[in-house]
Amino acid sequence: MIKPRTPPGVMELLPREQIAFQRMLDTVRRNYERFGFLPVETPVFELSEVLLTKSGGETERQVYFAQSTGALEKGGEGLPEMALRFDLTVPLARYVAEHEHELAFPFRRFQIQRVYRGERAQRGRFREFYQCDIDVIGKDELSVRFDAEIIAVIHSVFSELGIGAFTVQFNNRKLMRGFFEAQGVVDAEQQALVLREVDKLDKRGADYVRETLTGEGFNLPAEGVAKILEFVEVRSKSHDDALSILDKLVAQHANASLVEGANELREVLTLVKALGVPEGAYCLNLSIARGLDYYTGTVYETQLDDYPQIGSICSGGRYENLASHYTKSKLPGVGISIGMTRLFWQLREAGLISGIDESSVQAMVALMDEARMADSLDIARRLRAGGINTEVQMEPKKIGKQFQYASRAGIRFVVLCGDDEAARGVVAVKDLVREQQFEVKRDELASTLKVELEQARALAGR
Amino acid sequence: MIKPRTPPGVMELLPREQIAFQRMLDTVRRNYERFGFLPVETPVFELSEVLLTKSGGETERQVYFAQSTGALEKGGEGLPEMALRFDLTVPLARYVAEHEHELAFPFRRFQIQRVYRGERAQRGRFREFYQCDIDVIGKDELSVRFDAEIIAVIHSVFSELGIGAFTVQFNNRKLMRGFFEAQGVVDAEQQALVLREVDKLDKRGADYVRETLTGEGFNLPAEGVAKILEFVEVRSKSHDDALSILDKLVAQHANASLVEGANELREVLTLVKALGVPEGAYCLNLSIARGLDYYTGTVYETQLDDYPQIGSICSGGRYENLASHYTKSKLPGVGISIGMTRLFWQLREAGLISGIDESSVQAMVALMDEARMADSLDIARRLRAGGINTEVQMEPKKIGKQFQYASRAGIRFVVLCGDDEAARGVVAVKDLVREQQFEVKRDELASTLKVELEQARALAGR
Repeated sequence: MIKPRTPPGVMELLPREQIAFQRMLDTVRRNYERFGFLPVETPVFELSEVLLTKSGGETERQVYFAQSTGALEKGGEGLPEMALRFDLTVPLARYVAEHEHELAFPFRRFQIQRVYRGERAQRGRFREFYQCDIDVIGKDELSVRFDAEIIAVIHSVFSELGIGAFTVQFNNRKLMRGFFEAQGVVDAEQQALVLREVDKLDKRGADYVRETLTGEGFNLPAEGVAKILEFVEVRSKSHDDALSILDKLVAQHANASLVEGANELREVLTLVKALGVPEGAYCLNLSIARGLDYYTGTVYETQLDDYPQIGSICSGGRYENLASHYTKSKLPGVGISIGMTRLFWQLREAGLISGIDESSVQAMVALMDEARMADSLDIARRLRAGGINTEVQMEPKKIGKQFQYASRAGIRFVVLCGDDEAARGVVAVKDLVREQQFEVKRDELASTLKVELEQARALAGR
Repeated sequence: MIKPRTPPGVMELLPREQIAFQRMLDTVRRNYERFGFLPVETPVFELSEVLLTKSGGETERQVYFAQSTGALEKGGEGLPEMALRFDLTVPLARYVAEHEHELAFPFRRFQIQRVYRGERAQRGRFREFYQCDIDVIGKDELSVRFDAEIIAVIHSVFSELGIGAFTVQFNNRKLMRGFFEAQGVVDAEQQALVLREVDKLDKRGADYVRETLTGEGFNLPAEGVAKILEFVEVRSKSHDDALSILDKLVAQHANASLVEGANELREVLTLVKALGVPEGAYCLNLSIARGLDYYTGTVYETQLDDYPQIGSICSGGRYENLASHYTKSKLPGVGISIGMTRLFWQLREAGLISGIDESSVQAMVALMDEARMADSLDIARRLRAGGINTEVQMEPKKIGKQFQYASRAGIRFVVLCGDDEAARGVVAVKDLVREQQFEVKRDELASTLKVELEQARALAGR
């Protein structure tokens, strides 16, 4: 006998939780589709040579390799032939480069799949997790307007997920670079080092960061450091406030990079408003930098207003060139990613998973009497034809047990039909949510339950 | 520069095909849910020790192992710690045994995930492919009634998939065993050997099989062999024909196993009828044996009537005990599996994939004039709020190019709003399917398109 268990670092759910998780994934997908994004799925493994174009990075340290029994026995030198994807961006780059001549650009794609990283096992860290990505890829160029559309998608997704108030925060790397240049931090590498220190603000406090930046090693003038610390504290309080922040920055530091970044942010702000995103749901946050090598324009983070400790639940940005390892074509893009497994885990920890009480099974036909088995199946057939997810009690059990089962399983309606009801052409329905019982004509059963379920759905805002 | 390419043996689709494939997966899932099955997802990898409880089998030869960079460098003896799942049955056994005390039995679960096998690379053989499984697992016992429900699910799935007429064919291993015993083939192992020869009927013909079974090695009496060959040719022509076939068999060979099998088939037939499955969609097929070690009662195969060469598109059966390697509990079950990747590939080869012309994007808002960008976004917002998947042209292009793009992408409606339309509070809509253009009030745009789309959906039977 072998002890049944999963490998460490994976999230496996019981059916009730899986239903809630699946609902969240469906909501994300529905919103991605609503904005015209097209589905892509790529294989879980890629050729190692293709996946690991950059060698020696931190990511590669975490890669899982895959090999068949045959390859394992043969052994051989070098890396195994195949590796599991560690994100959805590298597979996207490979996909777009491989199918470049079969795709229409700008190419809006979404991808909802699991990725694999050999993280150290610890609470809330997963070795297998869902990413829900969207990207828009241009050929040669891509309008900054798409950067605004991304914000509208994020807003649409999290509004419909219904996990509380949230703010999409954004910044622009050009604006940031221009500002740093104006403070005499011109070199990109030095900017990265300064940003790394600035990132310690929350943990170490302003004094520590100020001392580091003015001290040996950085040797920045105190005035410049003060301005940097002021800059990264900026959050806009409204749409107009965001615009006036940009105006002020441009007036103070009119270098090319800063002006270009400010102009991009202005266009993004204007279109975000046109897209109907309420201004309480977005703001400028000049501390956001994200991947320091990768992003070049707009950068995004999203926070739950009441749970800032969860950190960013959706991040991304604009990049210059998606697939330089695979094609000579220039493919600029903008995209974001939601780490759904970790988000679900965090929401569950915080008690914020809603609808976990509600099964995907909406009705159960009880079995009152062995002789009525065939009739139960007919009732179930009518319910299913009417679009109601229905389970049938197939084995004789005490009626109390049947109700107990339905209640524990989160099934809302229990349908009963004894000889008396059958003779009168009706069925009895027990509504376990409203705790009411009613009779309905057999022909009207499905449509009646459908109306009830749609009302409940409308009330829950789904 | 590295050539972008997938590993051999995987099916990667372009967006248009991916939409069609996703629709098929959604249909399967919707039908599984409709019958009250609950979702389960398991990690792509399992501990090797847990996954590979039986060693040395053909399946293990095809297993992919996964290991992180660290583990790879360390080397070490024996198998790598983890292996990719090669089906969804072993993970189900592990899942049910691990969560036995948290699940309600009978446990109806569906699982739609990819599995991995190191097949030899050849056309139509995949190393990564989707399986769509349902199983009902009982504790200690499980009524044969569930065997009938499975047939109704299969019927519901393939009816809605709309890939042509099909027949769910079934048999019963007990009936088969009883019949073989009556012909003097008593030993289970010998029965398996005889069945293997019988399986060659199609390829080698009756004479060859008859000679083998009567010849050296088997030494079966000619009369018995004739009866066996007659038995495996039996297909029922109607519901009543199926029942009378069973009556005749019971009258001729009244041994316990055959009678039990016949009784089970009778109950299955009765309930399948009660479940409303039309009798043209199912039949007895006494040649079906399936996995010779594993299945013990009802066994299923499903064929497309017009494409028998595709073989069984959905197979499974009843088994005695799901998880004997992991738990002492007896867990009998019944289930089926649809190999969706291979099915999609075969249907595509046969030109049977429908709806590939229809994008998941339903409307495109054209950009007629730079100055109308913000207005385009507002129109799109209204469409999306009304449930229409909508893409916006974000970059200035000739209007002819915009139409060409929408047409190639399979987007049905192109929405146009110039200054004139805006002044009159209307938009123009070009319906690329009906090749008509019409005007509609801005407020009524989404609801108008929704009606059109629902009509089309109703016509297509979706």
